[in-house]
Amino acid sequence: MQINKNGSITSPKGFQAGAVAAQIKYKDRLDLTVVYSEVDCSGTAVFTKNQVVAAPVIVSRNALAKNSATIRGIIANAGIANACTGAPGLDNAQQMQQLSATALGCKPEQILVLSTGVIGMHIPMDRMATGITAAVEQMSGKNGRLAAQAIMTTDTYPKQQAIQVQLSGGTVMLGGMAKGSGMIHPNMATMLGVVTTDAEIAPEVLEGMLVTAVNQSFNRITIDGDTSTNDTVFLLANGANGIAVTGDKDQQQFQTALNTLCKSLAHMIVRDGEGATKFVEIHVCGTATNEDAHTIANVIATSPLVKTAFAGSDPNWGRIFAAAGRAGIPFDQYKASLLIGIESATELELVSQGTPTDYLEEDAAHIFAQAAFKIQLDLGSGPGSDTVWTSDLSHDYVTINADYRT
Amino acid sequence: MQINKNGSITSPKGFQAGAVAAQIKYKDRLDLTVVYSEVDCSGTAVFTKNQVVAAPVIVSRNALAKNSATIRGIIANAGIANACTGAPGLDNAQQMQQLSATALGCKPEQILVLSTGVIGMHIPMDRMATGITAAVEQMSGKNGRLAAQAIMTTDTYPKQQAIQVQLSGGTVMLGGMAKGSGMIHPNMATMLGVVTTDAEIAPEVLEGMLVTAVNQSFNRITIDGDTSTNDTVFLLANGANGIAVTGDKDQQQFQTALNTLCKSLAHMIVRDGEGATKFVEIHVCGTATNEDAHTIANVIATSPLVKTAFAGSDPNWGRIFAAAGRAGIPFDQYKASLLIGIESATELELVSQGTPTDYLEEDAAHIFAQAAFKIQLDLGSGPGSDTVWTSDLSHDYVTINADYRT
Repeated sequence: MQINKNGSITSPKGFQAGAVAAQIKYKDRLDLTVVYSEVDCSGTAVFTKNQVVAAPVIVSRNALAKNSATIRGIIANAGIANACTGAPGLDNAQQMQQLSATALGCKPEQILVLSTGVIGMHIPMDRMATGITAAVEQMSGKNGRLAAQAIMTTDTYPKQQAIQVQLSGGTVMLGGMAKGSGMIHPNMATMLGVVTTDAEIAPEVLEGMLVTAVNQSFNRITIDGDTSTNDTVFLLANGANGIAVTGDKDQQQFQTALNTLCKSLAHMIVRDGEGATKFVEIHVCGTATNEDAHTIANVIATSPLVKTAFAGSDPNWGRIFAAAGRAGIPFDQYKASLLIGIESATELELVSQGTPTDYLEEDAAHIFAQAAFKIQLDLGSGPGSDTVWTSDLSHDYVTINADYRT
Repeated sequence: MQINKNGSITSPKGFQAGAVAAQIKYKDRLDLTVVYSEVDCSGTAVFTKNQVVAAPVIVSRNALAKNSATIRGIIANAGIANACTGAPGLDNAQQMQQLSATALGCKPEQILVLSTGVIGMHIPMDRMATGITAAVEQMSGKNGRLAAQAIMTTDTYPKQQAIQVQLSGGTVMLGGMAKGSGMIHPNMATMLGVVTTDAEIAPEVLEGMLVTAVNQSFNRITIDGDTSTNDTVFLLANGANGIAVTGDKDQQQFQTALNTLCKSLAHMIVRDGEGATKFVEIHVCGTATNEDAHTIANVIATSPLVKTAFAGSDPNWGRIFAAAGRAGIPFDQYKASLLIGIESATELELVSQGTPTDYLEEDAAHIFAQAAFKIQLDLGSGPGSDTVWTSDLSHDYVTINADYRT
């Protein structure tokens, strides 16, 4: 398995992208992209579980229900989410399919749709039409990075990577891009991800693979991912290199590469969270089940008081205990221990059996002052464990979100 | 029913308080108070539902289990929460009872304990002992306001009120104090409340009354109150005025006064939330049950993205829909409507049947720029409704919490 940090969604064979500044809402920056496969793809998706779903989610879900073996492209825009826009919004998302299909020479139902940005606004369809034509005109197999730029909202850099993996029949390539950014609380922001591969995989196999990878990556950054109105991850396999992923061993190797790619993208999202200055791994163990550990880790990872303590480099671990205690999972506080540490460095035990150790405050503060550190809460009562990744809650988060639309 | 905004916990007959600067953690400000009743009280409490409970919660729970008809006083301190302090912390809380009982001339188990502040630190018991002696020495029936000051942490002003209510046998007085302050997310902060009355009420009646009042007040500010390690509300009835609250009508009138007092104190806590600049009422209706409405209202009220939009006076209502949609309660987004308004002024409909109306952005922004406004989300699918109160998430919240301990 070989990771290429400069790779992108156009690294796999047969994928092209075009990206333009369509002035959908932002001024003079890339905000529209068309991703195209020269041949039909198997396609699958994981969508938001929010009760309120955006028009592009409805349209893409319908397309995949009918055409999961013959997907040809994705039309994506940033700036306007096309959520809470009623019937006109649904029309607009369908028009995005239609316009893209016309420009690409395929059927509308072979096109998937992604939108991200402000809720409750309509997409200016004249600019969308002009933008789609322009994006298709400048499509090439080298524009993956531009596509990753065009889906950004308050992201500060594009998120992308490619991974090459050796299977029994030869080498296949996976490429991915994602955007997050309001991901300090991903449940309220739009998380978009696209993974492409030139391997050949049947849609029904693809689906399980994506679910597995998302559960280990995008669903473990701060919260459970069943979240915003637009959250979507697509996986497209076009088979352009002629190598089929069949047999347990090949599938397992592909799955590992897919997991790695999704995890890399997910970590990039946390590191580029709105206002984020810290990357924190939260590991909870000693619970009855992994699910219990996940629940507790998520409550810690989303607690404003914990996250502001991270921002202030203040090892105020009492907040971690208080957050764990309100997660709804019973435990014995007198069996709980807490470790903190920097990756691959010595760990520092702050609490043992529910009682503070005689650690030095300066040692704890030193760890919390790092750009990346980890926390391990051991509840001492079972074999369950889980890990989530989160960032801090800083002044910049408030600045970004107090006037996002202006 | 007559509200006295300058009243306090010593307004009811037979209650005294003393407050001193005991240097528990803060320097040279009131941080310790003894509340004393000249005669035995019926006592009851509502405690945090957090799995991690502070030592004073354990000690007070035991005292009430044994002596709910003969409570004589409360010892309270600010600065150190005495939570996550293991067996030594439990000893210290019991010593607080013992020291107070000695000074007051009663039994330790007649004393309730309250602590608020930093988790994981031990209380300096020498200072505590000196402070208790000093507080008892200067006790009087006029010190209610000082007691309210002595329980403050990052609160910017003391929270207190008294209410006089006419019953069939005569007039009784209720007095209350509370502290909150990290109450933008009360589930992580310590909320303390004390209500006193000179009416005579049996402990078993008192308990139900306090639960009812807390459910309509402290449990509706931002979240469900089952929360920090120390959250506690006490209600003490000493019967010093010789009027018993018996019979449905008197009980109902007393309950109404108690509800009003608790709601007033709860609203003060929201208005003085850490960094709070806005007071927002969130009303959700049109759900199957009141509980569903409560769940949705709480998710909206605690969403960082909604609360930062409040801080920025940005009527970015899409975030309200997105928060409602992730509350886990199914609803049809195309039946949802959203109104915003200033109290007693004309309401503005922003969304009707899931689609934005043609409201003017400046009208919506005007409402969001007020110091107090309300939001009504009608899901159009049932008779359920509920209201919660919340504040905004401002820069000051981050400033306060990023280095609370330093």
